[in-house]
Amino acid sequence: MKIDLKLTQIIIIVILFIFTFSNVAMAQTITGDPLPSWNEGTNKQTIINFVENVTDPENPNYVAPELRIATFDNDGTLWAEKPMYFQAAFSLSRIRELAPKFPEWKDKQPFKAVLENDQDYLANITVNELLEIAMVTHAGMSQKEFEQEAKEFLDTAKHPRFNQLYKQVIYQPMLELLTYLQNKQFKTYICSGGGLDFIRLFSEEAYDIAPENVIGSNIFKTYEIVSNHSQFIRQPQLIEPINDKAGKPVNIERFIGKKPMLAVGNSDGDIEMMQYTVIEHQPSLALLLHHDDEIREYRYTKGTEKALELAKEYNWKVISMKQDFKQVFSFTSE
Amino acid sequence: MKIDLKLTQIIIIVILFIFTFSNVAMAQTITGDPLPSWNEGTNKQTIINFVENVTDPENPNYVAPELRIATFDNDGTLWAEKPMYFQAAFSLSRIRELAPKFPEWKDKQPFKAVLENDQDYLANITVNELLEIAMVTHAGMSQKEFEQEAKEFLDTAKHPRFNQLYKQVIYQPMLELLTYLQNKQFKTYICSGGGLDFIRLFSEEAYDIAPENVIGSNIFKTYEIVSNHSQFIRQPQLIEPINDKAGKPVNIERFIGKKPMLAVGNSDGDIEMMQYTVIEHQPSLALLLHHDDEIREYRYTKGTEKALELAKEYNWKVISMKQDFKQVFSFTSE
Repeated sequence: MKIDLKLTQIIIIVILFIFTFSNVAMAQTITGDPLPSWNEGTNKQTIINFVENVTDPENPNYVAPELRIATFDNDGTLWAEKPMYFQAAFSLSRIRELAPKFPEWKDKQPFKAVLENDQDYLANITVNELLEIAMVTHAGMSQKEFEQEAKEFLDTAKHPRFNQLYKQVIYQPMLELLTYLQNKQFKTYICSGGGLDFIRLFSEEAYDIAPENVIGSNIFKTYEIVSNHSQFIRQPQLIEPINDKAGKPVNIERFIGKKPMLAVGNSDGDIEMMQYTVIEHQPSLALLLHHDDEIREYRYTKGTEKALELAKEYNWKVISMKQDFKQVFSFTSE
Repeated sequence: MKIDLKLTQIIIIVILFIFTFSNVAMAQTITGDPLPSWNEGTNKQTIINFVENVTDPENPNYVAPELRIATFDNDGTLWAEKPMYFQAAFSLSRIRELAPKFPEWKDKQPFKAVLENDQDYLANITVNELLEIAMVTHAGMSQKEFEQEAKEFLDTAKHPRFNQLYKQVIYQPMLELLTYLQNKQFKTYICSGGGLDFIRLFSEEAYDIAPENVIGSNIFKTYEIVSNHSQFIRQPQLIEPINDKAGKPVNIERFIGKKPMLAVGNSDGDIEMMQYTVIEHQPSLALLLHHDDEIREYRYTKGTEKALELAKEYNWKVISMKQDFKQVFSFTSE
């Protein structure tokens, strides 16, 4: 009996031990490798050298914690963006849900195409049509109502290829990079063309990034008190600039007021953010994730051509998903 | 000689000791009173009880650090706002500096009134005229140029009555409250009707509030690269909403995405921020600073009438400068 009790205690201790050390931060402490899902190579080494140097008070490139700003694009950088932006999938799903209330949509584009799943039409959808869909699905309700609808989607909708919740289709190596930076007292921000309020609903759970550290595209809201409830009403009008291209540095300046020293992106929409980060600014580092792995994720260069070209000129490090990522997602073994 | 050396060492140690303990945070540790410039009374006790309760893990009102958001108005709450908003004094000073380049201003209102110091005209200046002055002095240049001009003003211009730099005309009791909250892991934000970029230039030095924790009125900026320099150009157009009245909760939601649990203001422009903080939200506290001390500062209720009325309804604590502030400014002994 005495031995059994001790065995039970040992088992409990082991379980507690495993539980305690099961997160990435703790795993680092044990293995000493802050980026275990990255393959060894110059890119991994460049990132580690950069972070270790700027956080070492003895190093000439040391940077004080309050200036350790890192900005990450979201779609295609932290989570996948194919076969379509996940927020667009939310919009289409909402259009289908709302359709019974709007019988006229059966004959009105672009809603007709969404309801009929007309892939030919949707493949050539215009920006204005997308905006029309976005405004119908993202505005005209209270902030609370929107959050409920978007949360419902995020908690249930699955990625068509990976059969995981969209919010789980995130890149394990990028998650490790975020955790590594957070442990090294970097302030990590999302700087996404996607919607601020959509991203805030999962950024804390998925990336440990708080609502106040999310920069995204946004619409106007009004504030009102109705029978002693205070609420925000979402208005169908975008706040300029949309958080894409030159809008990224503009909004980084508006929301943070400091230049990032590390920027991570994957497409032409991230060019200005990456330029802003590295131009006349040392120490700094910009990483461009290249989707070149059709086996484990997707392979595409469309919308990334100019960024890939500029990478050489500005000495941005091009991260090859195929070569640099040992594991792509947390839910796969490779 | 041996004794002299020891005496020198002792003096150095005493000087180091005084130097080390000369800031407010350290003073607290010694005296145990986090708010030494506040008179004893129900207001001081309410604040201390609130802060101690919400930060005590054993208390039913305990709130986790990430939700400890406190928002402070600036003009009339953290620093004085009489005889005119300090940023308006900057604008007028810039108009005088710019006048040689704009000879037509001699005959054109409102510039004529500024150049002639026409107090009658300025007393009845319209909002549109003020906006015209603000845009001429705050837009049409690069962000860097604006910052140089505003910094020059902040580093040299003195308050006409107190004969101190404007950035030193800050309320010592509010400074202690900020430090107290910061030490208790509150995130302290400025939420001001004044200009974001103007406030950012002194908020870190004056209040230990970082640029990313300043919410203010703002204008549109564009981003451009000119001969390998990246720069922002300030455009003469305000971003809606101006950070006043209902604009305050809207921008708090936009920039932070969390409801404050403590709001501090002094005028009708702060009503919605204070409502938003306390309506259906416990634990929460709102403080309204009342300027009722013509001896040490100013006495006025204009622009504060409605807030003072609502204070009773919403149970906001009205802070009397005369009764609650033991010392008003750091540069005066009382």
